[in-house]
Formats: sequence, C-alpha cells, structure tokens
Amino acid sequence: MNKMKSLKNLLDPRKIAVIGASNSSHKVGGIIFRRLLLSRRRLFPVNPKETVIKGHKVSPDIHSLPEDIDLAIITISAAASVKAVELCIGKKIENYIIVAGGFAETGERGAGLEERLKELVKEHNINILGPNSLGIFLPDENIDTIFVEHGDKALDRNGQVACIVQSGSVGVEALGYASNTGFGMRAFVGLGNKCGLDEIDFLQYFADDKKTKCLGFYLENIERGREFLKLAQKVSQGKPVVVLKAGRTKTAASAVSSHTGKLAGADNVINGAFKQFGIQRVYDDEEFCDATKVLSMFSGTPGNRVAVLTAAGGYGVMCTDFIEKEDNRAALKMAKLSEETKKVIRDSTFPFTACENPVDITASADDMMFSLSLDALIADKGVDIIICIAFFAPPGISENLIDIIAKKIEYSIKPIIVFTKYGPFTDNSIKNLYYGGVTAYPSIGRAVRAVKFLVERQKIEDKFNVLKKSVLPPGSSLCTKRESRLKTWFDLIDRNRQPDEYEAKKLVNIYDIKTPEGRLFSSADAFSIDRLESKNIPSPYVLKVCSSKILHKTELQGVLLNNDKSDVTANFQKMKQLFPEENIFVESQTESIGPELIIGIVKDPALGHAIMAGAGGIFTEIYKDTAFRIAPCSFNDALDMIDELVLSPVFDCFRGIALDKKKFARTISHVSMLASELGDKLNQLDINPIVFSNGEWMALDVKVILEQ
Amino acid sequence: MNKMKSLKNLLDPRKIAVIGASNSSHKVGGIIFRRLLLSRRRLFPVNPKETVIKGHKVSPDIHSLPEDIDLAIITISAAASVKAVELCIGKKIENYIIVAGGFAETGERGAGLEERLKELVKEHNINILGPNSLGIFLPDENIDTIFVEHGDKALDRNGQVACIVQSGSVGVEALGYASNTGFGMRAFVGLGNKCGLDEIDFLQYFADDKKTKCLGFYLENIERGREFLKLAQKVSQGKPVVVLKAGRTKTAASAVSSHTGKLAGADNVINGAFKQFGIQRVYDDEEFCDATKVLSMFSGTPGNRVAVLTAAGGYGVMCTDFIEKEDNRAALKMAKLSEETKKVIRDSTFPFTACENPVDITASADDMMFSLSLDALIADKGVDIIICIAFFAPPGISENLIDIIAKKIEYSIKPIIVFTKYGPFTDNSIKNLYYGGVTAYPSIGRAVRAVKFLVERQKIEDKFNVLKKSVLPPGSSLCTKRESRLKTWFDLIDRNRQPDEYEAKKLVNIYDIKTPEGRLFSSADAFSIDRLESKNIPSPYVLKVCSSKILHKTELQGVLLNNDKSDVTANFQKMKQLFPEENIFVESQTESIGPELIIGIVKDPALGHAIMAGAGGIFTEIYKDTAFRIAPCSFNDALDMIDELVLSPVFDCFRGIALDKKKFARTISHVSMLASELGDKLNQLDINPIVFSNGEWMALDVKVILEQ
Repeated sequence: MNKMKSLKNLLDPRKIAVIGASNSSHKVGGIIFRRLLLSRRRLFPVNPKETVIKGHKVSPDIHSLPEDIDLAIITISAAASVKAVELCIGKKIENYIIVAGGFAETGERGAGLEERLKELVKEHNINILGPNSLGIFLPDENIDTIFVEHGDKALDRNGQVACIVQSGSVGVEALGYASNTGFGMRAFVGLGNKCGLDEIDFLQYFADDKKTKCLGFYLENIERGREFLKLAQKVSQGKPVVVLKAGRTKTAASAVSSHTGKLAGADNVINGAFKQFGIQRVYDDEEFCDATKVLSMFSGTPGNRVAVLTAAGGYGVMCTDFIEKEDNRAALKMAKLSEETKKVIRDSTFPFTACENPVDITASADDMMFSLSLDALIADKGVDIIICIAFFAPPGISENLIDIIAKKIEYSIKPIIVFTKYGPFTDNSIKNLYYGGVTAYPSIGRAVRAVKFLVERQKIEDKFNVLKKSVLPPGSSLCTKRESRLKTWFDLIDRNRQPDEYEAKKLVNIYDIKTPEGRLFSSADAFSIDRLESKNIPSPYVLKVCSSKILHKTELQGVLLNNDKSDVTANFQKMKQLFPEENIFVESQTESIGPELIIGIVKDPALGHAIMAGAGGIFTEIYKDTAFRIAPCSFNDALDMIDELVLSPVFDCFRGIALDKKKFARTISHVSMLASELGDKLNQLDINPIVFSNGEWMALDVKVILEQ
Repeated sequence: MNKMKSLKNLLDPRKIAVIGASNSSHKVGGIIFRRLLLSRRRLFPVNPKETVIKGHKVSPDIHSLPEDIDLAIITISAAASVKAVELCIGKKIENYIIVAGGFAETGERGAGLEERLKELVKEHNINILGPNSLGIFLPDENIDTIFVEHGDKALDRNGQVACIVQSGSVGVEALGYASNTGFGMRAFVGLGNKCGLDEIDFLQYFADDKKTKCLGFYLENIERGREFLKLAQKVSQGKPVVVLKAGRTKTAASAVSSHTGKLAGADNVINGAFKQFGIQRVYDDEEFCDATKVLSMFSGTPGNRVAVLTAAGGYGVMCTDFIEKEDNRAALKMAKLSEETKKVIRDSTFPFTACENPVDITASADDMMFSLSLDALIADKGVDIIICIAFFAPPGISENLIDIIAKKIEYSIKPIIVFTKYGPFTDNSIKNLYYGGVTAYPSIGRAVRAVKFLVERQKIEDKFNVLKKSVLPPGSSLCTKRESRLKTWFDLIDRNRQPDEYEAKKLVNIYDIKTPEGRLFSSADAFSIDRLESKNIPSPYVLKVCSSKILHKTELQGVLLNNDKSDVTANFQKMKQLFPEENIFVESQTESIGPELIIGIVKDPALGHAIMAGAGGIFTEIYKDTAFRIAPCSFNDALDMIDELVLSPVFDCFRGIALDKKKFARTISHVSMLASELGDKLNQLDINPIVFSNGEWMALDVKVILEQ
C-alpha cells in the first residue's frame, strides 16, 4: 500500500461505509451520515437495526458491504469498533476513522483495545485515524465527518490552511473561532489517540497537497520527535509549519545535576528545536488561528519596518508601543517615512495631520484620505509592512474602506494587516474583511503579533536560502581521527565512576576545544615545578583538586588561584594536606576578556541530545540567557544561537570587548558533534565557564556525565 | 465654589442647558438632546432657529435661560463654543461640557481658542470638561451625553467602574467592547483636551463616590504627574486604580550621558512610579476592560495558588503553561491539591479522572460533576483562586453551568475566573456569565492575566498594610548636618565644569554612601607612599586619572589596578606621563563578593528625579535588569526594587553569596534623598559599580552631572 495514495482515499474517498449509521439525529452515526449526504460520494450505511436511512439501503452487517470501499467511518462503541475493523479487513478496506473514545485514555481495559488496534495496523498495513478522533473536514471536497457543531457554514471554500489537531475540544473551539471571524480551512483532521496515523503522515500529505499553503498542528505529544522535526524542516522550505505544543517537556530527574540540565527544564529544548527546523511555535488556540490565518494569506514580507496608519491617535501610540516592545519571536522597527510620503499624506488630508509614523489622519478623515495615505505608505521604499487601524465610527469612514484596503492588497507586495473594532459587530467586520482578502484582528496586540509571524516566517525562508549556499556540514573542520581517539579515551577512563575534570578536558580536546595547559599530579606523585617548566606551562598557576567525587570544589577550598612560581610548591602541599587521597591538577591560569559563557549538552527524553550555549558563571541560572538546539547543530545554527542570546552584543564590539563569534559558533558546533558521536553513552556535559583568551575560546572547567 | 460639590452638579445635574440642541437627529445637538430625554432631568434647549424640540420650549439665546442651570452642554462649533461659555458665565453657570473639536489639536487658531477657555476657567472658577470631550455617561443616573453609538443598552445599571478617558476613539471602542460582553460601568467621562477638568479632579471625585469600586484611566499625558501619583496612592488604599498610559516617556536628550539615563528611556520611570504609588498599569484597551472588570467584581484574593478545572485536557495544559510563565506583573503558582480534594473529585466523576491540578474531568463530565469538583477545590485550603474552563459543547454540560458557577461565587471568598468559548455565541456566553456575577474571558491568556490583576492588587493592599505599621520615613537614619555639608561641597567645587570622581564621591559620602579610602594627588603634587601610609590607606592600590574631562578613563589607560607597595610609585609616574595636566586619585583596592550593581538618578521631564537600581558593570545595558522609583523612595520601596530585579536571588544566599539586602535598600533610599535634597541642581548620577565588601556596600565609581 502506498500510504500517501491511500491517505488520499481517506481524505477524498469515493465510497464511504458508515458503520453504525442511524436514522436518529441524536446519535453520532446519524449526525455523521447526515453530514455526508452533502458530500456527493457513494455512501454505504451499516446497521443491523435499520433498513433505509435517508433513501440509502442499509447493509445489516459489514460482510454485506460491496467491495472497493475507500473509507470506513466507525461510529460505534470502543469494543465494537475493534471488532468492526477486524471484519472490514476481510473486505480489504484500507482506511478507517474511529470516532469512539473509551480507549487508552480511560484506563486498562481501553488500553487493551487500543493495543489490538495497533496490532491490526501493523499486521494488515491499514490506515486508522483515531480512535477518539474528531473526524475530518475538507470544505472544498464537501467532506465533513465531524459530529459536533462547528460553524462550518461560514468557512471559506478556498481555504489553504491544513489543521491537524490531537485534542477534540481544542479543535472544536478553534473551528468555532475560525468560522466566526473568517478563516480559510483547507482541511481539518482530528488525530485522536494516534494508534495508526499520526502528525508525520499528515505533515507529508499536506506538504504535497497543492491546495494547502500553510500547515498547523496542535500536538500534546510528539512520539517520533526527530522524524517530525526533520520532515518539518523539509516541508517548511516551501510552506509555513505552525505547531501549538502544549505542556512543558520535563527533562529526566537525573538531568538536574548540570547547569544545562536545570535550564533545559522549561521546554527550552522544544523551543530551540522548533527554531532550528523552521517550525513556528504558538502557545494557545487563539495564537494558532491568528498565525495560520496570516501565514496563509500573505507570502513573506520584504522586511521588518512597519508603518502604522490610524484615524485614532491613541491607538497609533499604543500600536507603536507594541511594535517596539522586545520579543523573542521577531524584532520589528517603526519605519522612517520619506519626506515625499509625509508631503503626500499631508496634501491628501489636513494641514494638521501628524505625518510621522504612526500616521494619524484624525477622526475627521474620510475613505478617500485613508486610501491616498495608504497609497503613499505602499509607495514608500522605507516601509515593509503596514498596519491599518480601521474604525468605522468616524462619520467620514464607511464600509467601503474594506474594499479600498482589499484593492491595495491585490497590487501591493507589502503585507497590510488591519486592526479593527466595531462594538458588537467586530467579528462580522473581521469576517467581511477576510472575504475581501484582508487579514484583520480585534486587538492591537494580535495585529502586531500577526506581523511578527510574517517576519518570523521570512527569517525562516532567508535561513533556508543561506543554507542552500552553505557547504560546510557540522563538524567538517574537525580532525578525522576522532573515532580512534574516542576509543582510546574510553579505554583509559575508569567506568566505575564519572570522568574527572582532567579526563573531561581530554574528551573535549578531541573535538578541538582548547583547555589551559596543565599537568595532573596523581595522589602518589610528588610535586616539582620542573615538571611544569619542562612542559612549558607558563605561570601563574591554578591548583585544582581533581576528583569525580568532589562536586563543589570551590566551596571546599579545592581551587587555589594566582600561584606564581615562588609560592606554587608551598600551596600545592597545603592542598595535598586537605585532599591527601586525591589527584591535583595544575593548570596555567588563563587571562580572558569579556564575560564567562557556558556550552552544555543535555539529553531530552523525546528529542535526544540538545546543545545549549549562553551566559556562564554566576549569572547562568539568574538570567537564564541561553539558546538550545538539537545536536548535531550546524555552524549556521550555532550562529543563530549566539544571535538569540541577550548578551550577543558582546560579540559585536560592545564597550571595547570584541569576542570572536565565528570561533565560538564553531566551538558550539564541535561540542554538538561530540554529543552525536558519543550517542547513548553521554548523559550530559557542562563547559562552564568558557572564556575568550588570546584569540581563542578556552574551556576552563568541563564536567561530563556518562550514562551508567 | 467647592469643586467636588460642583462636579456632582456636572455628573448628576438637575437642570441642563443644551446649547445648540436641534430637532435634527443627525446633528450632535440633536443626538445629545434625544439621549437626555431619558434622563428625567429638566432640559433647556437653546437654538435661535428652533422653537420647540421634542415638546421642550427652546430659548432663542443663552440670555433667555432661567437661573440655576447646573450644567451647560455646548454642542456647537469651536469658536461659537467659546462665545457661549462667555455668555453662560453671565448666567452664573458653573459646569460645562464642550463637545466640539477644532481646538489646540488642529493648529494655531484652535490653540488660541483653547487659551481663551483656560483664561475663563481661571478668571471665573468654572468647570469645563473638554473641549473635544466625548461627554459623560452614568447608567445609574440615566445621564448620557455621548453623541456616538456606544452600545449603552447592554451596560449594567449597577456598574462599579469609573472610566476616565482622554481620547474619544479609544473610549468609544472600549465602551463598545464592554457592552458587548457585559461590563459594570459606574461612569464614563471623556476628558478631551483637559483645558479645565483633568484626571486629578475625577480621581478625587470617584474616590469619594460610594457607587465606584474601581477607577480606570486612559491617559495620553499626565501634566501634574506628581500630584496625580500622590493622590492615586491615597485612593488606591481603598479602591483599585488602573491606568492605561500610552506612549513612552522619552527622557531629555541630555540624559543619555549616564547609564541610568539610557535605561530610563523606555518608560521604565512611569512603570516604577506606578508600582510605587499603587497604580496598576495596562497597555491597551482590551487589557483596560479586562482589568477593571475583574477588579470591580472581586475584592482581593487570599493568595496566588491557582487551581484549574477543565473538561478539555488540552486547555488545562495550556492554562498551566500560562500560569507558570514568568511575568513581571505578579507570580502565580499551580496549587498543590490535598489528597482529600483529589479523592472527592475522583469519587464525584470517573475513576480515570486526572485529579492532579489541572483537574481534567473530561468531555464526558456533566453539570453535577463540574459542580462537585468546584466545591472540592473551593474547600481545599491550598487553593486561593480557581480558573474554570467552561465549554458548552460536551453533551453533559448545559447552560445551567452558568448558574452553578454563579452560586459558588456567592458563598466562596476565593475568586473564580472563567475561560469560555462557544463559537459565534462566545460574547453572549460571557455576557450571560457577567449577569450571573461571573467574570469570564474568551482566551486562556486573558483569563490568567485577570488572575494576575487580582494578585497584583492584593500585593498593593498588603503593601499599604505594611506601610501603616512602618514608622521610618526615608532618610531618617541619615546624619542631620547634611545641609551645611552640602553647602560646603558646593562651595568647594568648580561650577565651570562637572564634578570629577573625587568630588562626586565626597558628595555621596554626605549621604552615608561608603567609598574606598584614598587620596587625591593634584597635578602639582609629588607622589610619596608615605602620604598613603600616614592616612592608613591599605594596599593594593588603584590609580585613576581624576578629571571631569575624561569620560572613558579605562579605555584611555587612565586606570591601573593591582599596585602593591613595591610598584605603586613607578606606576604613578607612568600615569603622570600619560596625563601630566590631571589629578591622580589613589585608592585602596576593594575586594568584593557577588556581582557589581548600579544605583543611579535621572531626571524625568514629567515626574522629576527617579532613582534606579540594578545590575552593574558590563551587564547593565545588556540585561537592563533595573528597577525605578520616584525620589525620594522609602526603605520599603527600595526593598521592592531589589525584589523586582532578576538578580535578586543573589541577596538570598545564592551559591554561597550572601549580600546584605537591607543595607543595600538603605543605600538606595539614601541616594534618593540626595536627589530630593539637591533638587533642581542635580541632572543625573551614576554609582557604577557599587559592590559588597567586608559587610558594607562600597561605591567604586561615582559620576555626577549637575544642571548647568
């Protein structure tokens, strides 16, 4: 079975069997059958208790169904559904929608039924959507199997958004909201318990679907995380992929022994992974609808400079506040208008019009003034996106404004987003604007956020364009003998304990991470300064007790700084007295410029190894200024991570500090290679701090935790 | 004239003259007159062209009006309005509403007219609301003078929110929104151009008004800033005060030479001042309505532990994400439910109910299960606030749920906030919930934000309760000879240039701010280590060139660290060669623990001196981790500032660092006294860094900029 071809039969079937179809309009099987009457498909109801439903002859059992059924919609109870699938397999039916709940979500008995369905999927290579699926709805194919009220009438036929939702209620409310204010739904798919088909199948299907321009997912869990990410990255090169992922990924309890583990907690890994793979993340159903709407209505934006046009001054000022507010989705700028633009607007409106951005043409303005001002902003080369604040209360403004804006959008390549409010008519205004091809929102914050979705999407496209030109795969500048060096490293360490600092540093050295020159004195070794000088290790020295048993060496006086040649011998003896059983590591002390940074690795239970970079030292857990990606990450990903940090200005000649950004990005990428190549053996890693010293990034402390 | 008594006549007049009343229902004077017909007040239309309007005899001119008119509503054009006021003054009318625009907002001619109105206000002690006022609307008094459509019918008679708005359009849209979803409006006042009455008058009036429970302001400028703040603080001890202040306060250009000045830019001063004076700030009209609604419907909350009850699992998870998301308004916690609560809920619902918070009773739940679960949460001592996610789509849930929740609210002291959505019926559901006494919102984010308004309000009340007990006024622990020491300081400095570091440090010393021990060597002085030792200044030493001309001394090699007794003389000579004309300041080098901090003063154009505290050193302008207050600020204000900082954990034994928080708060408060006592003479001040050393806060560098 070609899965994609078979999915086409599920979503656009010719012959549909409805198991449990009913004459009762209260029963699920009755509601679904009624909806399908509008589908212009051949319907085959099955019900031992009925003979005719709405003019259709009813089969008393599955066995009596004809051959060649494309899709069986099973509307009966959980246990009966499983039996029905078994019988349908005998009729060679490939596609199923199972509506019933009462499976794994309700306890042990249900879980058993769900297991059986999974077995059937594997054994017979069938497609099951659900169980506990809300069904499917494709307005343009006249297919609607959703048994709850969902305001379908108002949904646009030519919709371009494919919505794939795991939870029924979130899906229904989103549908209700969407139909209420205009929304272009290409398809709605309720995944339910995902015992057969899941998000990856539909990601692939709608990626190939010509009628789909934007894909939106609501997911509570992503089981095949890496597969989903990789496919999403491919898809998002052509179409925006929006994901509402509720619930924070908690990292395993073991993870919290490293800084990286502590910071990975609040779903930073998912955030980083979504950025890396070109997915736009949203946080609730409102944002889901807002994002998919605007992303399906506009293709990209030339930049992030926003002009605001308003007939209500106060809203212009508030809008500016929202535009200039910092946000980690995308940065927006207030456009600087040209003198020409300002002149045109003033000439078209009033001598007292405030022509600086935000442009306030006042409540005395009329439709024509709005139109001419909009033309001027569209013509201004310094403007990339326009937000129109359109109220219909001023006496000079009529409903014609909707058509005026719609016409501009037809010829302008610049996105125009509308914020409008109209008392009890607000939703209707927004819907009317939608039918005119205009994306509108009922609050300033949401209008500005929509602009950010467009700019974020543009950044993703730009990133893919850069990637196409880039040739360097991650780690390609690394030495090639890593495999044998890793083997040697593993051979030398004692697997009954975690590696100590000396060993951890040797490990990162394999990946070209520099560490200070130093020498290890085992507990049996006698100290002699000659042994440092013979290796040309320059003073001053740092003395560190080196043991995987001692976690907080600084607090236990296990670190001594600033030892020069004259006092290092005496200080070594002092430390020896404190830790007679331990090795002591003597390193050259590093002089550095700029802040301390951190690079770390953590293992996410769903997505595997993730890499973190950020502010190090005492501020690591205070400012939580970190960026995450999945390992391995490319050089470009690493550059993105650095740019994402609040402290990124220190890489751009901030107050006389000039740190080497490219070298730091390469270091991040190399550490991520380490994680990938160690694979299951590595649990977590902290390089903290890593500092910039004499033109190189230098790992001053390294901690490695291996899987036991 | 007693202004408050006179304002009562404006807002609740017995006799109203409508200048420009008309029979035309299209003219402003016609619309307003019609609205007033419902007011059951005596109306006196004035219009030379009409004789009878809706059964009222029309006066041909103002002169013909009877005595004792409480309020004149002037509905004619700008210039005519000014003349009308002049004539009305002859009739001893005290109160005016001027509707016309065309004043200062439209250029020079209009500004002249507005000036004339201001003169009339001063000369004759009259109350003018406007010009350019949207009018007033008090549902419970049957008074409505608003000439645009504003959905009044749906507004609750017994409303308790007083809305005072400067801009017409923002006011109208807020009214529309409010009437759309249920809102308790006590009064709506359109301030317009504020040539007579302003926000302070109405703040006082509605503070005293028994029917008002919450005050909300939309302000574009606050001219008498400090007065407004002080009165708001008094008012907010009894009633919540919410302010939507649009537009960022840009500090004067001169300000940007200090760190503090740079960071004050993005309206941090307003933010800090609002916190200090108990004002809750909002950022758009949606938030304005959401906040005033919830604050008028609930009085306080016992704490910040939130329980979530849902019949839709996905929304419960999203809601948790919103609750746990960090936010600088108020921190919320997910409540930990007792075993008893979980048992009651499980027994009342299903064996498979997820009874941990968020409680998901699944889409199979019915009204009774919802009710019993809600009872269990109300009874749980670990729960302070409840968010109900109420959807009407599940078959077991009916509209009775509204009454069920309403009844709980009657007897529970715990606030219950509802998030609901119902396709095209959403607004109506919310309105029905409102009439049942239930505050509901159509998005999770807004429901959670409403909870934050309550917790923020509670914090303000708690703060006032603490203040009542506190006795220490700001600066009371300072020495009392400040005045004479300040005079001496001013006598000694050269007023032709800004103070240098040595002088700046002497200034802060007057306010008990400690600085390292040191000695200044003037350009003529010869260096001798004896001069340090005789003053017991301990080594190592820092050498600093000390000149108000040299701004970036570090970058010009004007700072030398780590000079011990053996090399200080030679290094002094080196610096002398670099800066032969300048003084050199030799200080004992300070050993400190913890991060570098900053304290600064900036002069806000509207609010005067503001004090800032935050992260110092290179991170000051990167993390912008700062808190602002108006000077002088109390010890408690200073403690609040510290708690507001992201880095505040370093004051609570973070990783072995224990900085003295109380001493730092006292230092902040002392610096704020300095600002107040220097008054107009001080432009700005930076203490950066200030560090914790041997149990004291030590200012390592101080920069003072005086007004020239």
